[in-house]
Amino acid sequence: MKEYIFLNGQIIPAENANIHVSDLGLLRGYGIFDFFRAIDGKPIFIEDHLDRFENSANLMGLKIPASRDELRNIILEIIRLHPQHLLGVKMVMTGGYSADGYTPAEQSNLIVMGKPFEFKPADVGMKLMSVEYRREIPEIKTLNYITPIRALAKIKESGADDVLYHQNGLISESSRSNIFVIKNEKIITPVDGALFGVTRKHVLNIAKRHFVVEERDLSTQEYWDADEVFTTGSTKRIIAITQTDNKVFSEGKVGKITKKLQDLFLEHEKNFS
Amino acid sequence: MKEYIFLNGQIIPAENANIHVSDLGLLRGYGIFDFFRAIDGKPIFIEDHLDRFENSANLMGLKIPASRDELRNIILEIIRLHPQHLLGVKMVMTGGYSADGYTPAEQSNLIVMGKPFEFKPADVGMKLMSVEYRREIPEIKTLNYITPIRALAKIKESGADDVLYHQNGLISESSRSNIFVIKNEKIITPVDGALFGVTRKHVLNIAKRHFVVEERDLSTQEYWDADEVFTTGSTKRIIAITQTDNKVFSEGKVGKITKKLQDLFLEHEKNFS
Repeated sequence: MKEYIFLNGQIIPAENANIHVSDLGLLRGYGIFDFFRAIDGKPIFIEDHLDRFENSANLMGLKIPASRDELRNIILEIIRLHPQHLLGVKMVMTGGYSADGYTPAEQSNLIVMGKPFEFKPADVGMKLMSVEYRREIPEIKTLNYITPIRALAKIKESGADDVLYHQNGLISESSRSNIFVIKNEKIITPVDGALFGVTRKHVLNIAKRHFVVEERDLSTQEYWDADEVFTTGSTKRIIAITQTDNKVFSEGKVGKITKKLQDLFLEHEKNFS
Repeated sequence: MKEYIFLNGQIIPAENANIHVSDLGLLRGYGIFDFFRAIDGKPIFIEDHLDRFENSANLMGLKIPASRDELRNIILEIIRLHPQHLLGVKMVMTGGYSADGYTPAEQSNLIVMGKPFEFKPADVGMKLMSVEYRREIPEIKTLNYITPIRALAKIKESGADDVLYHQNGLISESSRSNIFVIKNEKIITPVDGALFGVTRKHVLNIAKRHFVVEERDLSTQEYWDADEVFTTGSTKRIIAITQTDNKVFSEGKVGKITKKLQDLFLEHEKNFS
């Protein structure tokens, strides 16, 4: 499949999507992004992702160089150009071509890309490695992933798939997904330090119809004592966390309530695709 | 003056220095940089900056795609191509063109740029605005400047020139320069949370010949109680901090000891140019 990228007003072949080195995303990490899926050409939860992208832009003082309708149309065109069963769509926006290499330009740089991807199988759990860290500005989906990328070698070495962030005795999130624990059929997800994921929001809505759900601070002790743990994200939907460091959860299998939520989520997602 | 940029093995006209959007510096802020000056064609403290760049690369798990001699030669060629009284030279290196937008590539992307710049006048002080923050990985000169760039509007609004970082009652640094305070003719500079600047190192060496110098934790209270405050950096040499928030230092002027260090530093720098 030939790939295309939208870059500053034009859709061009992916191999030509070059940006000048004075871009403030490149020079100073100053930028935001968002990511979502399209299934058989239909974007999933697109309005939620546009909401969050706009919110990130506002909190960063950046102006999106397209109206919401224009941006949605760009996205739909990128999806049309990549006829895939599963397509990941990524929007990236930076502080533009900075005159002094520090101050954001009047005009932001906007990129929209599409790439095929595969879901992790829902019947297999993930292993996390705990890392003492809290994202700098958790409420913004910024470009800064230095800490988890730096940890990649250690993650691999320890046999884990990703990180679990904790700081000052509180659990916040994983590198690109939210964390939920289940204890005595009650579902708890952290608030402080977490980016509120779109999948998280939909899972919360579904879970509240069937279980007691608490959005609040989650202590590391509660995490270790959990009956089941799972993580949510656009590339994952709901995936069980079957191990973190040396602690095994739900006997290393997808827990009963996690499985129920996975089924409910798949049903719910059909309404959007 | 026509500008040139070294990009991945070639020196090309600056306007053609484009990088593909799959670069991991752009997509995930995964990269490092260093910056130094050339005066009348002579790089100042270049070996210190090459040391630090190599150290940043090691700590990020990135391989510089050039030997030290090759990199030095690239820098000297960039300086030769930009005949300026004062030239700022910047090296940037990122995690390369990432296949999955997350994992660093085998080959890093390396950029070397030269741009004319001007020093701040040494007889005028700067004003800082205090910000509760500590850089994520202070020992590495990473690309992440989201917090200070996001604060630019507030800095301007408050009439300040830059930020002063503090957290948990300790002073660490400014956005791109180190902090020194003087109390009863004793000079103190923070260790925890600070990137050890090259100018800082040279100022320490000079100061130790004339004053009692302490490198240690510096409390916010000591900062507010200081007789004089100054900051050091490659684009600043030594600049007095005459105000922070509402607190005025050394009657709003360059303090006596700061002035003496400025003179000593200029003398010292001549040995390198």
